[in-house]
Amino acid sequence: MPLLRGKTIANLFFEASTRTRTTFELAAKRLSADVLNISISTSAAVKGESLLDMLRNLEAMQCDMFVVRHSESGAAHFIATHVAPHVSVINAGDGCHAHPTQAMLDMFTIRRHKKDFSDLRVAIVGDIKHSRVARSQIHALTTLGVAEVRVIAPKTLIPRQVQSLGVHVFHKMEEGLRDVDVVIMLRLQNERMQGAYLPGYHEYFQLFGLTSEKLSLAKPDAIVMHPGPINRGVEIDSAVADGKQSVILEQVANGIAVRMAIMSMALGRTPDAAASTKRERLL
Amino acid sequence: MPLLRGKTIANLFFEASTRTRTTFELAAKRLSADVLNISISTSAAVKGESLLDMLRNLEAMQCDMFVVRHSESGAAHFIATHVAPHVSVINAGDGCHAHPTQAMLDMFTIRRHKKDFSDLRVAIVGDIKHSRVARSQIHALTTLGVAEVRVIAPKTLIPRQVQSLGVHVFHKMEEGLRDVDVVIMLRLQNERMQGAYLPGYHEYFQLFGLTSEKLSLAKPDAIVMHPGPINRGVEIDSAVADGKQSVILEQVANGIAVRMAIMSMALGRTPDAAASTKRERLL
Amino acid sequence: MPLLRGKTIANLFFEASTRTRTTFELAAKRLSADVLNISISTSAAVKGESLLDMLRNLEAMQCDMFVVRHSESGAAHFIATHVAPHVSVINAGDGCHAHPTQAMLDMFTIRRHKKDFSDLRVAIVGDIKHSRVARSQIHALTTLGVAEVRVIAPKTLIPRQVQSLGVHVFHKMEEGLRDVDVVIMLRLQNERMQGAYLPGYHEYFQLFGLTSEKLSLAKPDAIVMHPGPINRGVEIDSAVADGKQSVILEQVANGIAVRMAIMSMALGRTPDAAASTKRERLL
Repeated sequence: MPLLRGKTIANLFFEASTRTRTTFELAAKRLSADVLNISISTSAAVKGESLLDMLRNLEAMQCDMFVVRHSESGAAHFIATHVAPHVSVINAGDGCHAHPTQAMLDMFTIRRHKKDFSDLRVAIVGDIKHSRVARSQIHALTTLGVAEVRVIAPKTLIPRQVQSLGVHVFHKMEEGLRDVDVVIMLRLQNERMQGAYLPGYHEYFQLFGLTSEKLSLAKPDAIVMHPGPINRGVEIDSAVADGKQSVILEQVANGIAVRMAIMSMALGRTPDAAASTKRERLL
Repeated sequence: MPLLRGKTIANLFFEASTRTRTTFELAAKRLSADVLNISISTSAAVKGESLLDMLRNLEAMQCDMFVVRHSESGAAHFIATHVAPHVSVINAGDGCHAHPTQAMLDMFTIRRHKKDFSDLRVAIVGDIKHSRVARSQIHALTTLGVAEVRVIAPKTLIPRQVQSLGVHVFHKMEEGLRDVDVVIMLRLQNERMQGAYLPGYHEYFQLFGLTSEKLSLAKPDAIVMHPGPINRGVEIDSAVADGKQSVILEQVANGIAVRMAIMSMALGRTPDAAASTKRERLL
Repeated sequence: MPLLRGKTIANLFFEASTRTRTTFELAAKRLSADVLNISISTSAAVKGESLLDMLRNLEAMQCDMFVVRHSESGAAHFIATHVAPHVSVINAGDGCHAHPTQAMLDMFTIRRHKKDFSDLRVAIVGDIKHSRVARSQIHALTTLGVAEVRVIAPKTLIPRQVQSLGVHVFHKMEEGLRDVDVVIMLRLQNERMQGAYLPGYHEYFQLFGLTSEKLSLAKPDAIVMHPGPINRGVEIDSAVADGKQSVILEQVANGIAVRMAIMSMALGRTPDAAASTKRERLL
């Protein structure tokens, strides 16, 4: 599908992430776009005017889209408010704030398994406090009008005033998982374990790791999701990760498709328009 | 413009430069060439016969062009004299010697704004001594027959016998900028500041930084150029860099176009030839 | 030859190798495949289940082929036994075990110069003990039914029970090179020299380096091969490496062609099939 032939997409990764960058790179290449991978180490801090100068230069090179990953919340938004009108910006994760394409691929995955969002009960389990994925998922789920969004985590990993986002808070898996249609497990970042947030891997798994036993409290046809990469034996048991209810690898596959769709829509090409462009070229 | 479809271009960067490499990479991709990025750390010194063996290998892999950036003057020339006849070599900057594609895009940019080179007065300001960009610009400007090339810098940053290149030397902006049509600011390398060449950023800006006030000495329609990346507040004031007379971002855009042109011409394809190749393929 | 248009090939390099990766990358690009370069540092040890999770993810992203380089013998085989049926795996070198594509390009190169394998005497010279290249060459040569395979090396660099592979062992060049049709020199790894295996470069060259004088013992039309990169003056003299009998650079050129062939065959496309796919697209 050469929908983006002749377009240039720059992956601006201020935070290292081979995995996420790979999915955007693949999505762009499969649309025949030219891709630039630009890693900007945060130590060589490109800030303030220098960042804007870098953006101006990439614009001048006729880049059509910036895919931005940054460790600071608001970075992609800041960039989007400063680029030229013809440049599209995709937020590929900013600090603890948002990871919209992840949430979109998650919603797409749910839709492929569940008919109506308005009937769904969804539980998000793990480090809600530091998770940009969770924030974007909550935003997407409430926008789509699900019946209930639950967050399940120890008190130290629940952000204050989280209820204002329209979720119900649970501190026990046994209560939070009851009768849900979708269980979304979050990755436990190693760095959190070293601080005062958590007692240890083993105890975390005991309390908040998803096992077949705990999963049996959800609806029989509940699906299990995870943004990856998974920590087996920490937040999820292998029997569940590889089990029938897991759609984790479907999420990965859908991630490419959804990012291709987002890129195509943002750059304003439809298959029809591309076809006519192609026709003109052949003539 | 798939003029270079089926051609392979290797970026041989013995000196790190994301920025320059990116422009060559984009130029090659937009011509549909296959691009190899090969970074050779100078520490792992590939020298003498080893370098030649590397070149022979890349030739055997059917590379059609080497884009060479090297910290030593003469490196690209050395390589060009040793490669097989069918391989083209582009000098992407060698030591303090030359940066021809930069000068060519600069000339192209000047031509888009000024009609006749023979009437032009051009001032190049900054670290002339260590600048391969300045050397190539002087060479290009005198070849194109401009009325006058001026270099403006403190004595420590002027190379000896620079007059033999056909330029006039000035040590004061107030004198050198008077009535010029084009002002080319050079980037001040940080490493120069740490040595004995200069007193400090602040004083440098006072004396040689381009401000609106100093620019007013030039002709009213003078254009301001800079090879980038700019050091705001060091060699150029933001009011000038972002002002009406600045063509700095045009230089960036032209840089891709000029490099595409150079690559196409070096590899001996014209749009017509490519079109007929394409036709044959479709038949 | 866009035989692999729409296919995705991931280069999984657990061991650094710009050179080998470049040949696979070029081969894939010349077939119009999308290429992902993924370097996995062995220090950040991706092992056991984590490795399998990485593979599952790449499969989910619709990668069609993994090109695997790994410092441990058996790595590519392990991966091949665990990937989904539709994914092809190419061993690009695993520990001291095998480097099959190198052997295949070597056989192809021999075939272009010698008519019948059954008449050939082939000598492999150097560090047989640690060489995956030698193992794959011996396997290929005996499979193709050559008259004799000889290995020539000091005792410390000959693996035990090497005769069981069907080769004759020599410890002196003067004896082993006599009347051979093909001389394959192996690269002497620097790390071997620092251990107890060898006395020193100079003595090694005296005894096992290929000079014109020693080469004169082989048949007059013998060809000289080397997997590269060569150590001039260590295992081979420049006069031989650059001489008439050397086919070392042909090996490099054939390496791209053979890898293109392997990739095309593994992914099940023939030029005819690709042509019809193309036709459908144009209609």
